Order: sequence, then C-alpha cells, then structure tokens
Amino acid sequence: MKIEGKHYRTIWLDPDNNEVVQVIDQRYLPFEFIVENLSNTEEVAVCIKEMHIRGAGLIGATAGYGVYIAALQAKREGFQEGSSEFFSRVTELGEYLKSTRPTAVNLEWGVDRTLTAMQKSPENSIKIALKTANEIADEDADFCRRIGEHGVEIIEKIYQSNGGKTVNILTHCNAGWLAFVDYGTATAPIYAAQAKGIPIHVYVDETRPRNQGARLTAYELGEQGVAHTVIADNVGGHLMQHGLVDMVITGTDRTTFTGDVANKIGTYLKALAAKDNNIPFYVALPSSTFDWEMTDGLRQIPVEEREGDEVTWIEGWTEDGVKSVRLTPEKSKAVNYGFDVTPARLITGLITERGICKPDKESILGLYPENRKS
Amino acid sequence: MKIEGKHYRTIWLDPDNNEVVQVIDQRYLPFEFIVENLSNTEEVAVCIKEMHIRGAGLIGATAGYGVYIAALQAKREGFQEGSSEFFSRVTELGEYLKSTRPTAVNLEWGVDRTLTAMQKSPENSIKIALKTANEIADEDADFCRRIGEHGVEIIEKIYQSNGGKTVNILTHCNAGWLAFVDYGTATAPIYAAQAKGIPIHVYVDETRPRNQGARLTAYELGEQGVAHTVIADNVGGHLMQHGLVDMVITGTDRTTFTGDVANKIGTYLKALAAKDNNIPFYVALPSSTFDWEMTDGLRQIPVEEREGDEVTWIEGWTEDGVKSVRLTPEKSKAVNYGFDVTPARLITGLITERGICKPDKESILGLYPENRKS
Repeated sequence: MKIEGKHYRTIWLDPDNNEVVQVIDQRYLPFEFIVENLSNTEEVAVCIKEMHIRGAGLIGATAGYGVYIAALQAKREGFQEGSSEFFSRVTELGEYLKSTRPTAVNLEWGVDRTLTAMQKSPENSIKIALKTANEIADEDADFCRRIGEHGVEIIEKIYQSNGGKTVNILTHCNAGWLAFVDYGTATAPIYAAQAKGIPIHVYVDETRPRNQGARLTAYELGEQGVAHTVIADNVGGHLMQHGLVDMVITGTDRTTFTGDVANKIGTYLKALAAKDNNIPFYVALPSSTFDWEMTDGLRQIPVEEREGDEVTWIEGWTEDGVKSVRLTPEKSKAVNYGFDVTPARLITGLITERGICKPDKESILGLYPENRKS
Repeated sequence: MKIEGKHYRTIWLDPDNNEVVQVIDQRYLPFEFIVENLSNTEEVAVCIKEMHIRGAGLIGATAGYGVYIAALQAKREGFQEGSSEFFSRVTELGEYLKSTRPTAVNLEWGVDRTLTAMQKSPENSIKIALKTANEIADEDADFCRRIGEHGVEIIEKIYQSNGGKTVNILTHCNAGWLAFVDYGTATAPIYAAQAKGIPIHVYVDETRPRNQGARLTAYELGEQGVAHTVIADNVGGHLMQHGLVDMVITGTDRTTFTGDVANKIGTYLKALAAKDNNIPFYVALPSSTFDWEMTDGLRQIPVEEREGDEVTWIEGWTEDGVKSVRLTPEKSKAVNYGFDVTPARLITGLITERGICKPDKESILGLYPENRKS
C-alpha cells in the first residue's frame, strides 16, 4: 500500500542491517511518519505493549520477527544456537512477548509458530526464525489480498442492486493495511472495489479512546484516495436508521470457531444497529484470528483492561506539534476496556482468505476442515 | 445544586441589574467557571446557538428570559411597549431565537409561552415577560425535583432486589442540572437516591463529539459527591453484556406523544444494548419536552447537523490553559449529527414530573389527559 505515493509494508528487515527489524511507529500517525528500529526483545515488547504497532496481522508478523530478534539476543547473551539452554531462553523471551497483549490471539500464534519451526532444525534455528517470520508476513499479505478478492463480490452485488449508486460502507477501528502487513482485512474489499472502479464511500468511526479510526483508517484511506468521512462513534446507528449505510465491515482480534468476534470496543453496538436496520454486518479476518478451542466468546475471551488515562486524556495535533489535553475533571476516574464481543447471531458473514462463510461452527469448519476434531 | 459547596441555578437575573440575565458559560466547564451576561437578543441567540448553555430545560428557561431581553431591546429601539409594532418586533426577535437550535422543542415552547402571556396584558408586557420567564425557571426546577421523587423509586427497587449492593446506572450526555434550571432530569433520581443513602455509581458516557458527559456530567456528579466513572461511548454495550449496569437513564430533547425519543446522538445505540441485555432503559423528562403532534420520531423529528470541526478537533485542558487539538488527517472530512431517535419499542419507561409511564400514546395521554384530542 502507499504512503505519499511510495509502496510500503508495515514491517520489514532493515536493508542495511538484517539483525534489525523496522516498523512504522503508528502512535504518531497521521501527524508524523516515523520509522522505528527493533533490535532486542525489550524493544519489541514495548513496541507491542505500548501499541507502536497494533492490529491482528501486524501483531502476528511482529511476533514472528520478535522471536527472530529474541533468538539473536539469546545468541548475543552467550547461549549456543540450537542448545536446549538456547531454546529455554528464546522460549522465555517468547513467553514475555506473548504477555504484552493478552487478547491478541495472533501474538501467541506467531510466537509459537516461529518457535516450533526453529526446533525442527536446531542448528539453523536463527535462520529458520527469520524465514518463518518472512513467511508469516508474506502469508498475511497474501491472505489479506484474497480477503479483498472475496469481499469485493459483496460490494459488487450491492452496487448492482442499488442501481449503480455509490456504496456506503461503515467501518470501526483500523482493520486496514496498517493493522496487517499489507492490504488490511476490513479495507481489502474496499481497496479491491476501488481497483475495479466501483464508487465507494467509507464512514470511519473515530473509535475512542485511541481513535484508530480517526487517525489511522482515515489516514490510509486518504493516502489511497478512497472517499471517506470521519464520524463520532455515536453516529453509526443514526446513519443506519436513515439508509445511509449499505454495509458494515470490521476486523476482529479473536474469532471463536462458533462465530463470536472479539474486536475493538464498540463493535458490538454497531452490530446491534446493523441488525436492527437489516444492514449486512461482515467481519473480515485471516484464519490466524480463529480460536479453535473457544465456543462462547462472551464468556471465554479475556478482554484487556487498559489505562484510564487513554480516556481522560487525548492526543492531537497543534501548531506546536502533537500535544495531549485532559478531557475530564481532575477528580473523575475512567475505565478502559479494549475490546468487546459481538455474538455470532449479529454477524451476516465472515470474509476469510478461503472465502465467505456464515458465523457458525459448521460453516467455519467447512472452510477449514483441518480444524475439525475427530 | 452545588458548585464548590455553594448553591446555584443555571440561569438567574443579575442581582445588580434586572435588565441583564446571567448564565454559566458551560463551554469552559469543567476547566473554568465563567458567568456570562446576556443583555440583548443577539447575545442570547449566540449563547444558545454556540451552546454556551444547552439542555432541554435550560434552553426553555433561556427562551423565556430571551423574550424578556428581546422585549427590553424592542423598547430601547423605540417601539412603544404594548403597541402592535412592539409585538411585531418582539415576535420577530423571538422567531430569530427559535431558529438557533431547531431540534430543541423547549426553545419554541419557551418563546411562544412568553409571547402569548405578554399579549394578554400588552401595557405590562415586559413585566409579564419576566414573570413568565421566572415561572418557566421555577416550574422547571420543580418538575425536575418531582422527576427525582418518581425516578428514585426505580432505583430503590433495584437496590432492594440486588441485596443492597451498589446500584450501577449508565447515562449518556448531560441531562443533569446543568441542562436544566436545577436538579436535572436523568440525574434527579440519582441525586434523590444519594439523599436517601442508597449506594449508587454512575457510568458516564463521554458523549462525543462535544463530550458533555466527560465534561459536564462528570463535573456535576463530582461536585455533588456522587461516585462515577467516565467511559468512552463505545464501552456501554460491553458493560451491559457483563452485568455491570443495572439501569440506563437518559434525558430527551423531544419526545413524541407516541413515545419516541430524540436525544443526543448515540442514545439509540445504548438503548439497543440495554434491550439486548434485558436492562431497563428509562428516559427522564419534563412534559415540556413532549411533542403532541408527532407520531413517528424517526421520520418526523428534524435532526440538527452541526459543524464537522466538532469531530475533527477537540478541546481540553493543558498546563497552558484550554487548547484545541486536531484529531484527524487534514484531508479527511467529518459529518456531525447532533441527535438520534430512539424508538419507543426500546424504552422501558418515561419518568415525568407526574409519574412514570410506558412509552406509548395511551399511557402518556393517561398522565397528560389535557392533551387528548377530542
């Protein structure tokens, strides 16, 4: 995808030093474009925990590269590559990385996949870690591209049935290419529609408290030249009541194989409004987001509680640079849940890299039969 | 109600000059407490339009005092008090006041009530205007007090049925005493519960884009010593899914006599979540908020569209005073609807100054039989 016309991915190896991984520090977008170097595990952990990077796919790729960085670090610390002490150390660092964002299933998945691959070829384990991280990143980009190919069919049908008028899509948070390695998930069908010349317009929920919609989704849609309008999170229901939204597409951080979706806090409210107004509500996801154990998202998915400061203060651009301002009386406290769970009954369909399916066990396992338990 | 322990109303006559009306300029709360003087119609119009004051009841009282100010102005302009030219001029100024906030039914109501009273006693019309404005203000405070008396019964029942645990109430926007002359509507039962010693805790929706919850409701609950927590507008659904909310109380700007409620944008989303989780959703209102003509809120109530800047910029406190910061990329536009309509089917009950009723025509007309058409 493009930034000021130049092609980027969201994570890459430093071309001048292949022991350093580079990412876009998304905390400064859309106000400043800053590239961050990751050269040890602590830097990777802070990068994930403090949300320099975020989003299911990008967290997964960062997990892969994070284990590569952890392996390099273990070697620097004197552990012999491939020894059991080396693997203990790398596993320990991997566990530390996993602890930084407990709700993000891709984090655990990316760490474990890379560790497992390394153990199959102990003497080349650092090389294998890098190769696996690259594979995760390439796969993520490829999966997102395919999500776009499947999802655009839904947009095309709406376009045909509404007599060729602009298709209005609402999205929440950022499940765009900034949340993945490339293309994004919720945005992939939008970019595919743009490429096909279908007129589209996106309502972007600002997505308080961290404003990933207002900051990141608006930024990437702008850079890609997609027509869009930022709205307060409160507005979506009103738009749907008045026929101003043709479909909703969001991403997901964790999806039970029974079709419940844990996504950015507030997603559930938009799904309720879509249901109440008979508007299709789709969730776009790579299969790495599936949890093949959980059957009840609401009861089983742990929801991260973050600092109240993210609610009581907000960051924005001023002529003197980016500043934080306090929004609340000093005496008032705040709570800050990162996610909510949208039950399957409110979801029209899941757009995956293998195709679109209904949010129920049989349909999901129909697309992913290898996860069917005997 | 109290600010730093001192009793206030939200609108009053300047004790040193009874041709000047004073209000709290709510734009600076909770960061600064500033009293504004209103001495001509333009100042009143700007005060309403630019939301120095806001809220159904306070707008109604300001409408009354606004006509008084308009009458004083017409006299200063040379129109003879009580003449038909005088009434033409005051009516013209009244129409101008009405145009400043088209969704707020209390504005029209307050202007018309004061004009009508004046016309009954032309030679004393300025005195009558002031008397009527005072009556509107006193009535508003009295109605809110009575809303509290009725509403507290609901809180008391929840308190009894949950075994004496803290009652958790969610509210959206500010329907507190800052939105009325005193007590507030949504907050009146809360303050009444506090007075009775019932342990309560209020979740305060920040209420983007203007943050009336984070700024005003949090401020007044803090000044009154009520336990409260500010949340992003996205959070309420999650809290309700997890049993953390016992009831919702909001205000309303306009209520059809069939029970549909136009309130601050986002109210509809909370009503959907309450319904989905079997949580009682109450709307507190003085009867001045009823519209006795409209039967379909969603189709008939005009919804004000405000400047996009309220979404793309936000104001907050810094060590250098109150500053605005930009939240979005410069290229991105925003839309900003002020209200949405919550259909009667999502509302448990209406808490009025005459008692609690179901949100349907028969129940509402049962409490207000004088509005039954023959």
